[in-house]
Amino acid sequence: MLKKKVLVIHGPNLNLLGERETGIYGRDALAGINEEIIIWAHDLNMECEARQSNSEGEIIDWLHAARGKFDGVIINAGAYTHYSVAIRDAIASIRIPCIEVHLTNIYAREEFRHHSVLAPVCVGQIAGFGKQSYLLALHGIKGLI
Amino acid sequence: MLKKKVLVIHGPNLNLLGERETGIYGRDALAGINEEIIIWAHDLNMECEARQSNSEGEIIDWLHAARGKFDGVIINAGAYTHYSVAIRDAIASIRIPCIEVHLTNIYAREEFRHHSVLAPVCVGQIAGFGKQSYLLALHGIKGLI
Amino acid sequence: MLKKKVLVIHGPNLNLLGERETGIYGRDALAGINEEIIIWAHDLNMECEARQSNSEGEIIDWLHAARGKFDGVIINAGAYTHYSVAIRDAIASIRIPCIEVHLTNIYAREEFRHHSVLAPVCVGQIAGFGKQSYLLALHGIKGLI
Amino acid sequence: MLKKKVLVIHGPNLNLLGERETGIYGRDALAGINEEIIIWAHDLNMECEARQSNSEGEIIDWLHAARGKFDGVIINAGAYTHYSVAIRDAIASIRIPCIEVHLTNIYAREEFRHHSVLAPVCVGQIAGFGKQSYLLALHGIKGLI
Amino acid sequence: MLKKKVLVIHGPNLNLLGERETGIYGRDALAGINEEIIIWAHDLNMECEARQSNSEGEIIDWLHAARGKFDGVIINAGAYTHYSVAIRDAIASIRIPCIEVHLTNIYAREEFRHHSVLAPVCVGQIAGFGKQSYLLALHGIKGLI
Amino acid sequence: MLKKKVLVIHGPNLNLLGERETGIYGRDALAGINEEIIIWAHDLNMECEARQSNSEGEIIDWLHAARGKFDGVIINAGAYTHYSVAIRDAIASIRIPCIEVHLTNIYAREEFRHHSVLAPVCVGQIAGFGKQSYLLALHGIKGLI
Amino acid sequence: MLKKKVLVIHGPNLNLLGERETGIYGRDALAGINEEIIIWAHDLNMECEARQSNSEGEIIDWLHAARGKFDGVIINAGAYTHYSVAIRDAIASIRIPCIEVHLTNIYAREEFRHHSVLAPVCVGQIAGFGKQSYLLALHGIKGLI
Amino acid sequence: MLKKKVLVIHGPNLNLLGERETGIYGRDALAGINEEIIIWAHDLNMECEARQSNSEGEIIDWLHAARGKFDGVIINAGAYTHYSVAIRDAIASIRIPCIEVHLTNIYAREEFRHHSVLAPVCVGQIAGFGKQSYLLALHGIKGLI
Amino acid sequence: MLKKKVLVIHGPNLNLLGERETGIYGRDALAGINEEIIIWAHDLNMECEARQSNSEGEIIDWLHAARGKFDGVIINAGAYTHYSVAIRDAIASIRIPCIEVHLTNIYAREEFRHHSVLAPVCVGQIAGFGKQSYLLALHGIKGLI
Amino acid sequence: MLKKKVLVIHGPNLNLLGERETGIYGRDALAGINEEIIIWAHDLNMECEARQSNSEGEIIDWLHAARGKFDGVIINAGAYTHYSVAIRDAIASIRIPCIEVHLTNIYAREEFRHHSVLAPVCVGQIAGFGKQSYLLALHGIKGLI
Amino acid sequence: MLKKKVLVIHGPNLNLLGERETGIYGRDALAGINEEIIIWAHDLNMECEARQSNSEGEIIDWLHAARGKFDGVIINAGAYTHYSVAIRDAIASIRIPCIEVHLTNIYAREEFRHHSVLAPVCVGQIAGFGKQSYLLALHGIKGLI
Amino acid sequence: MLKKKVLVIHGPNLNLLGERETGIYGRDALAGINEEIIIWAHDLNMECEARQSNSEGEIIDWLHAARGKFDGVIINAGAYTHYSVAIRDAIASIRIPCIEVHLTNIYAREEFRHHSVLAPVCVGQIAGFGKQSYLLALHGIKGLI
Repeated sequence: MLKKKVLVIHGPNLNLLGERETGIYGRDALAGINEEIIIWAHDLNMECEARQSNSEGEIIDWLHAARGKFDGVIINAGAYTHYSVAIRDAIASIRIPCIEVHLTNIYAREEFRHHSVLAPVCVGQIAGFGKQSYLLALHGIKGLI
Repeated sequence: MLKKKVLVIHGPNLNLLGERETGIYGRDALAGINEEIIIWAHDLNMECEARQSNSEGEIIDWLHAARGKFDGVIINAGAYTHYSVAIRDAIASIRIPCIEVHLTNIYAREEFRHHSVLAPVCVGQIAGFGKQSYLLALHGIKGLI
Repeated sequence: MLKKKVLVIHGPNLNLLGERETGIYGRDALAGINEEIIIWAHDLNMECEARQSNSEGEIIDWLHAARGKFDGVIINAGAYTHYSVAIRDAIASIRIPCIEVHLTNIYAREEFRHHSVLAPVCVGQIAGFGKQSYLLALHGIKGLI
Repeated sequence: MLKKKVLVIHGPNLNLLGERETGIYGRDALAGINEEIIIWAHDLNMECEARQSNSEGEIIDWLHAARGKFDGVIINAGAYTHYSVAIRDAIASIRIPCIEVHLTNIYAREEFRHHSVLAPVCVGQIAGFGKQSYLLALHGIKGLI
Repeated sequence: MLKKKVLVIHGPNLNLLGERETGIYGRDALAGINEEIIIWAHDLNMECEARQSNSEGEIIDWLHAARGKFDGVIINAGAYTHYSVAIRDAIASIRIPCIEVHLTNIYAREEFRHHSVLAPVCVGQIAGFGKQSYLLALHGIKGLI
Repeated sequence: MLKKKVLVIHGPNLNLLGERETGIYGRDALAGINEEIIIWAHDLNMECEARQSNSEGEIIDWLHAARGKFDGVIINAGAYTHYSVAIRDAIASIRIPCIEVHLTNIYAREEFRHHSVLAPVCVGQIAGFGKQSYLLALHGIKGLI
Repeated sequence: MLKKKVLVIHGPNLNLLGERETGIYGRDALAGINEEIIIWAHDLNMECEARQSNSEGEIIDWLHAARGKFDGVIINAGAYTHYSVAIRDAIASIRIPCIEVHLTNIYAREEFRHHSVLAPVCVGQIAGFGKQSYLLALHGIKGLI
Repeated sequence: MLKKKVLVIHGPNLNLLGERETGIYGRDALAGINEEIIIWAHDLNMECEARQSNSEGEIIDWLHAARGKFDGVIINAGAYTHYSVAIRDAIASIRIPCIEVHLTNIYAREEFRHHSVLAPVCVGQIAGFGKQSYLLALHGIKGLI
Repeated sequence: MLKKKVLVIHGPNLNLLGERETGIYGRDALAGINEEIIIWAHDLNMECEARQSNSEGEIIDWLHAARGKFDGVIINAGAYTHYSVAIRDAIASIRIPCIEVHLTNIYAREEFRHHSVLAPVCVGQIAGFGKQSYLLALHGIKGLI
Repeated sequence: MLKKKVLVIHGPNLNLLGERETGIYGRDALAGINEEIIIWAHDLNMECEARQSNSEGEIIDWLHAARGKFDGVIINAGAYTHYSVAIRDAIASIRIPCIEVHLTNIYAREEFRHHSVLAPVCVGQIAGFGKQSYLLALHGIKGLI
Repeated sequence: MLKKKVLVIHGPNLNLLGERETGIYGRDALAGINEEIIIWAHDLNMECEARQSNSEGEIIDWLHAARGKFDGVIINAGAYTHYSVAIRDAIASIRIPCIEVHLTNIYAREEFRHHSVLAPVCVGQIAGFGKQSYLLALHGIKGLI
Repeated sequence: MLKKKVLVIHGPNLNLLGERETGIYGRDALAGINEEIIIWAHDLNMECEARQSNSEGEIIDWLHAARGKFDGVIINAGAYTHYSVAIRDAIASIRIPCIEVHLTNIYAREEFRHHSVLAPVCVGQIAGFGKQSYLLALHGIKGLI
């Protein structure tokens, strides 16, 4: 049986992880986190590809291109979480289960981070576990696909 | 006399037309719709070019570049309709009449789709006629230019 | 084959067209516009009847009476657009496709004109093309019925 | 002893009952419902007259004229429930106990139907029992007058 | 020199003046008030006609018909004050100076009576002086025309 | 044929009826009202049990336990009406028709009493008839079950 | 019989009348207007004193001091109209009838000028008649005292 | 080394799982889910105790009592999620990491379910994975304690 | 003369005083505070009983039971302050003067703690003096009863 | 040891105490209340000075000048409570503990009196005890300084 | 050529600069800042006068008196920035270019400091540069006059 | 000593400066403005690089890349000012002082331009001085770095 494939999308500013506001986001750099994600996926018998973009349009393109290539999507859309109806529509358009992930507990931060325009079209949401949020999402997606 | 030229801009996720949520958006693919639009324009003695982009910045670039090349713009900005003040400013900046078009009746959908930030700077709005919305817009633009 | 029949309803204050605030609404009087509408309908092989009323109740009565007599309705409900839930219910009650029309771009005017209580129960909306809005609506209704 | 007299007022679009959106409003036509109301009133030893109008002004006229002729009013103001401050003032002006009635549970429908401008000046409200709402109102008014 | 002519329009429920909620609106009946208004106008060397209607449409008709016949309008639109955008548009359409009048101080009453949709298109507003409000309005209109 | 069984639930503070704010709630004590309710139910050929609790959790427990034992529920949830989403969910969970009842016209009282979180999941609402509200609810439930 | 005495209070920036934004406020200077007001009062057999202050506290002091000295107050509180709850309380504290006056139609200006915190404690409001607003207020106060 | 201990708290109406609205909440009964949770915990080398209550007060008592006995708390507070500031304060009071769990994607449901008053004081939130939400929470809590 | 009796009610989570968030609430345990309250009351020649509950229903029961037994109530309803309309109604129902007390200055904390639903039905409010708030309330209640 | 010194500031319109709206504010004049305050302070072994001003600027000046001269401030800012951010900043600027006092229960009055812009920068708030509010504040300030 | 003259107005509480909340506002006293401002102005070949007032009315008086004496105004209105429509009107009344200045970044502070009622009538706004904000404003005003 | 380096970022539509809405934005083209900025920087002994992009993602990339290369950033984010939380996060992520600049007084324009999501994470804001806004920002940044 073929391994299930998962696309992990990191949104804007997540390329600075480990360098930026480490009090909030932790000290791990994105490259290291991606390595861990790939190992975690492997341990769960899934295959995983992880990408980062600061561009709303590119994230939409990736979501479209995921059709037929990936069985699930894990997305941490960063700030786009709060206003990108275009990414929301992209998630709703492709028929791949998508999980919304946040490193931090967005509900314990500024008011404007409490609302996600993506949440209603995702399968579920995991927030607040640091890089472990991705691990939980992998567990979650495994149960779905 | 030179034929009038019209630029049709399709915004984010419209490249998935015919594949995505066909219950809402219909079964015609974008390529086919574009062909029809070009024929309709021809029948109205206009020339038409149609493009699609998922990128807010690219749509702005196209609007800027339309100056001096097109006599009218028909724009279905998809999700950007609801928050892209940058596209709004682009439309207001170029001096070409612009018509806002929607395949669906956005007022019969989710609350957040009821508000268009583009509407106040367009000549007019046509919504709810499926691909025929573009035909009506061509008729409309013909009367304007 | 029988010609399709369309009812055009003009709401409150539209009887003053051509006399009132011509900077906003243009210089054509309603009678003249109605003549043009009838000719346009004829050219599209449809039959058209146009009426105006300042009375919310009478507009509701006309909508009810349209059942069985007309194949489509084009309505410019004027100020009632923004608060007449009763007209909205009338449109939803009769099973005739209805198109909402505005001479002006209501989204470029006062805040209270940006919201239409009728829009969610109409097939579609056309706004901002002056008297041509009716012509576009005729094209639109032709595609529907 | 004279029989108590009750006026039942049906507001806009209720003349279409049984024909319109029967999934929501049921299959009984207004004429039939009125017959039942009159019989129910008779069984409760009251006399009842039932009228319908799509006109806000006419409903106000009827409320005014009820003074001295009726001992109670049952009103289903349809869509006017939600915005007719003029009908509200009419109810407050006449000194006849008035009961607000709705066929459907307006609180389980669209947001804009959740608010009644009439409720504060009526004795009470009965909503959600289909045509039985009128029967309950007759029971209610019997207890009041 | 011809005497200036003023139209006084009383809106919904004002026909019950003197009978209804006399604690709020006073004990004078409308007929008596109208007689006083006509005398006051006469004393100010103006001619005055006063009408009352519960119908929004009829009030609009009267405003339209005032063109060419009256030099000024005094309107107490009653409850329509708070939501009739249609009457507002009628006032804005005709080019006759219009004064908004209220018997009571609407700002000392329920919240929903604090907002007038007519105020922005009237010359001015007079509220809270009982029937004297009409006298002040006559003084005001005399200064204008 | 077995008699239909109805559970009447009185919420917080209703145990003080007849003692508390009698100007608002009337002079009948709860025990007396319950006796009347049981007689009314008997007259309508139904069996009725009435309980009162100040505890949100206990009311939820009673609603759950009603499954299989009662054919209908009449609930006056008192202050919980306005915020207990937990009671709302309980009503939605059990498949027994439930009628919301209020002694007073809640729409003529403080602003925060105008909104019921229970209303959307109940069959209907009866408010403003004092203890007769329960009688009307019994009539209503009889028509339903 | 003693002449009735009226205090006219002009609030902040009204000392610049005739110099400032004459398109909005007219070309008459405050001194001239005050002279006219005194003559108008005299013609109405009243005595009038007019003062201007830019200080909220001073206006409150004047209102307090008016007790026992004046029979009525006419106040144009300028910008304080929209937020000075302290002036509102002063008006409510003294038992002298007070009329709120505005030169302009405040409802046709910026949104924040549509709300008066003084209105609910004044007898009435007159707005939009330029300096004639004071004359109408004198007429109004004459009818009251 | 001692096994870490986790308390799982199920809030109001969750005792009806498997019986109630199975389209939304799935067909598993709470007892079965609790068995699975205990096994999952065991597999992760943790010890787990699961309880359900419809009472806000009892949930608060359990949270208090958890101090010194449990190393982590997983809470699905059901409807209390949306308004129980008292439970929020209890979570903030005890110094045990707490994870908020929801079976469903609360952001794809009614508006009033989009807001959690508990979220800001929990470590993180997991929503939308059905009973697997508890498994993910166990993984999450394992990483924390 | 009999000593006046005062009931002190501590709401949810106050049993953790001295253990929980001592930076906010101070280091005194509830038992110690209650001892002080009783001594303070004694010094003011009053008798005092103090209880704590996490249950909304139990607090309501205590308030009801206070009738005839206590001459005044001091309530620190904790989180229930902000949403328990049921406790509000209980306070309004019993005819015993009730004082609202808070250890902390609730207006200097989170936005949702700024609003008290109990305040309008209490005699007065004392907030921000730590355990001394109860002493001030005892002084206050002494002046009232 | 030196006696602690307390400044009592009474805001706008409080000079009218005992003369104005005695139903709300009681019958004691300010002079008498100030005498009592000074005696109460003396009994608590403190020294007290009390002043009143209708001027926002003067109250700010007094607060500034209190530095180095007073150990505590008790302020009843009257209507300024609700909007004077300038007084708020003055309180926050000086490092003297400040207690907010109200004669009436501001939460039982008009909506706009429910919000205090001063509360977040004061130590605490006492409202609703009439002139005793000042006595409680003196007790409170004694515990603080 | 005459030197241009600039008036610098410091609003409420700014007299405490250097003494008050130095973490926010810095350690420089107002006198020292004013000296620097005068030197900076001199270096830019302008003449400058700086004043401070806690009184809204006095600030208005100064603005009025600036006409004919100053060529530009730099205003840091402190807390009045957020609500003084009277100062706004004064700025709009005088025809002197006015620049709004803030020491701190008001958008990074409390919500209520984010809105300036003065901004729309000033030429521009400079915020967040500490005392350098005045220097930038001098540069700005030099470019304007 | 090395010259300090400043990055100037112009956001969407600013490439049209001098061509677009010159009444609002002035007649200088962006190229010319950039030349002036570079000279101004040179005069202040700084080095400056200026770029323009219509793409949100590209602006984020530039901000990231500025780390280690520039000592300060001046950003006129155009329409992105009002909604790009992603650019906000980028500014907060890099540790370079950033100044927000606007050519126009955004507070004197449409309501939606009054709010900047970038302001809270910038050092300060300069708005309304046309191209001089950049000069002031250079002065400001010089004082900071």
